[in-house]
Amino acid sequence: MTDTTLRVQLLLTGNELMSGDTVDSNSSMIARRLDELAIDVQRKVTVGDDPALLRAELASMAAQSDLVIINGGLGPTIDDLTAQVLADVAGVGLEQHPAAVAHLETWCAGRGLALNAANLKQALLPAGCRIIDNPIGSAVGFELNLGECRVLCTPGVPGELAAMLDGILRDLAQRLGRRLERDILRLQTFGLGESSAQQIIADNIPDWPTAVQLGFRAGAPQLEIKLGVDRAADLPQRDWCYQRLRELFGDHIIGEGDARLADVVLALLRERGATLATAESCTGGLIASLLTRVPGASDAFHAGFVTYDNAIKHSVLGVPEAVLAEHGAVSEPVVRAMALGAMDAAGADFAIATSGIAGPGGGTPDKPVGTVWLAWGARDSLQARRLLWPVERHLFQTMVAAAGLDMIRRTLLGIEGESRHMRQRRA
Amino acid sequence: MTDTTLRVQLLLTGNELMSGDTVDSNSSMIARRLDELAIDVQRKVTVGDDPALLRAELASMAAQSDLVIINGGLGPTIDDLTAQVLADVAGVGLEQHPAAVAHLETWCAGRGLALNAANLKQALLPAGCRIIDNPIGSAVGFELNLGECRVLCTPGVPGELAAMLDGILRDLAQRLGRRLERDILRLQTFGLGESSAQQIIADNIPDWPTAVQLGFRAGAPQLEIKLGVDRAADLPQRDWCYQRLRELFGDHIIGEGDARLADVVLALLRERGATLATAESCTGGLIASLLTRVPGASDAFHAGFVTYDNAIKHSVLGVPEAVLAEHGAVSEPVVRAMALGAMDAAGADFAIATSGIAGPGGGTPDKPVGTVWLAWGARDSLQARRLLWPVERHLFQTMVAAAGLDMIRRTLLGIEGESRHMRQRRA
Repeated sequence: MTDTTLRVQLLLTGNELMSGDTVDSNSSMIARRLDELAIDVQRKVTVGDDPALLRAELASMAAQSDLVIINGGLGPTIDDLTAQVLADVAGVGLEQHPAAVAHLETWCAGRGLALNAANLKQALLPAGCRIIDNPIGSAVGFELNLGECRVLCTPGVPGELAAMLDGILRDLAQRLGRRLERDILRLQTFGLGESSAQQIIADNIPDWPTAVQLGFRAGAPQLEIKLGVDRAADLPQRDWCYQRLRELFGDHIIGEGDARLADVVLALLRERGATLATAESCTGGLIASLLTRVPGASDAFHAGFVTYDNAIKHSVLGVPEAVLAEHGAVSEPVVRAMALGAMDAAGADFAIATSGIAGPGGGTPDKPVGTVWLAWGARDSLQARRLLWPVERHLFQTMVAAAGLDMIRRTLLGIEGESRHMRQRRA
Repeated sequence: MTDTTLRVQLLLTGNELMSGDTVDSNSSMIARRLDELAIDVQRKVTVGDDPALLRAELASMAAQSDLVIINGGLGPTIDDLTAQVLADVAGVGLEQHPAAVAHLETWCAGRGLALNAANLKQALLPAGCRIIDNPIGSAVGFELNLGECRVLCTPGVPGELAAMLDGILRDLAQRLGRRLERDILRLQTFGLGESSAQQIIADNIPDWPTAVQLGFRAGAPQLEIKLGVDRAADLPQRDWCYQRLRELFGDHIIGEGDARLADVVLALLRERGATLATAESCTGGLIASLLTRVPGASDAFHAGFVTYDNAIKHSVLGVPEAVLAEHGAVSEPVVRAMALGAMDAAGADFAIATSGIAGPGGGTPDKPVGTVWLAWGARDSLQARRLLWPVERHLFQTMVAAAGLDMIRRTLLGIEGESRHMRQRRA
């Protein structure tokens, strides 16, 4: 149960949000911060920089809410309308606010800038409002009540919003007298689809406790499963759910929080003092790129080979020309030879090798677009599998790269068998 | 002038949008597509998966609009409510829709999957609705009138939405009898910042015609400059602006439409019958991955080397151990030797090589985090530059990869000199 007594809505303003030129990440930031206080956002509305629309929207929101957060429209230009709109709806005038002027003077002085008229507009605020400090930008935030509803006005620049939210959150927590923050456990999984995961849970855990909120976030290649409780007293129930999920999906759970497959694989290699090499054809460097995005990857990843052409598979990885000629590049002997060649060339303990047809061209009746041979393991335990992902090129590369990393993860953990994805994709 | 007669609103649904777990990029995609028909979105509202809230919002939107597009909530799970909500507001029931069942059967068969109950829920649609084809996903879209307002229901998965929007746009254009679509010319640039580009235009083209709308979309590493006109009669003015921009930014313009640096580089190589190899240390395979994301990359890209470790720079690319010992891996002689080694090993005509300190660790006073040596060119025209991008690890990798591709683009085009970014980043 979240706080249903506090009704919160967001009002976002900016023509750039309506035209699609800017993707709104601010409302996500606000929601995630409010989530820490177990406060849900009920509704958010986005409109362009139109005073009439903004006034109508704000008046209707304030009538339905305890708290409205307005984001955007605090800047110095003529299309920054938030102060005027709030003053209009409150039926008050705009006034030069001394604390805001002082903030502007300090801000300009720190940058060796002269205070100009455009800047000063940012100190012209609704009469009677309270200032919210902006630790990094020129425009202060401000707060005013519309009847019973508190309205907070915040800047559209993401960094300034982030800095201002700290103070807003502290203030909210104090006013609400909040003790417990919502406790959310995120499990990262690979190899499960959202609908099958939900079906399996429904079939196997019919007695799922209502106090534990279950959520999913599907982001290829991983699926996040989220378990939330609002009261400390419900934590044992969450632990019970976690146990059940481990029994159902144990080897699909790659970690908690924001863990990515590449993080997990690198950590496992590091623990074992082992290194991994990659030999990529159809994934074209994506596996190496995912690994090297992780700070400190060099501990366990020394070399990757993108052998996109058959001649290079031979000259760089030592795949015999006769094997290439006889079996073709997308074949078990080639992908195994690529993995062994990469281990040799890199002096590595483990390797992942990929060779497949990413499309859209290059498919044949025997080996249609989406076919891939994947090899993984150490020299003495190399395995290979033929899989089929008949999906768009980049999604194919994403899924094959993740499958390769997941098979190394399973190898390092001594997990027998493969994921549900892999079983379904066997070709 | 945009079409003010057609009142369009968006209704976005999903708890993940309210909790902040997902940043909404779909509404931006929809707005950009509608922009092609000179249709503005007036307002968008986002609510969680709550049937009562959704019903109230939809009813109120439909009363104020000619077109409502609902995004999200088409999936197989119990929190996918769109069909039920639309049926409730329309006062009709849900029915198994034969065309949707047929679509599901084909979709599952193509993937070797059995149709399950969760999937079948996606064919349970409001009575009397019209199906909108989903070319890639399992959930079809659908359309129903609420009074005078058309309601289109679209999937939340971005790739599926993108595919469905093509058909929706064609249909809208036909119904509206649009002759002229808003004519938008998108120029893709690399090496310009949004605010400096804007300042340069203001300083140099004070007589910018009001009929030509100028917009920017900053998406690292590229900056998109957008020129729009609403009437065919204004096209000559747009051409005039384009000419002025070419004079100001000519060598920063990499292409029109959705051109990416990797596309442009591969096309230039293909025209010349030439090939490119990569030797990546700090970018860790990202350049190879960007190239191989492009269909047909194998024509011009045969091999990439991720030499993350010094020993590999020597053993695989032939960088002399003495040079590594004397100058360190992040140095001009090493990055030049890497580029030459990659050309030799791959038999390639051109190479890009990167060696730098992506951070967060590994910086020194001489070579702080963000330092990179970049080499590019052919054997007889190899160049190298030391640059500094003191930014977060992945953004550093992104910018260095793009800078390498851009320098090869300039080399292939015979452009003298470097981009503004590069001049500013020289270290």
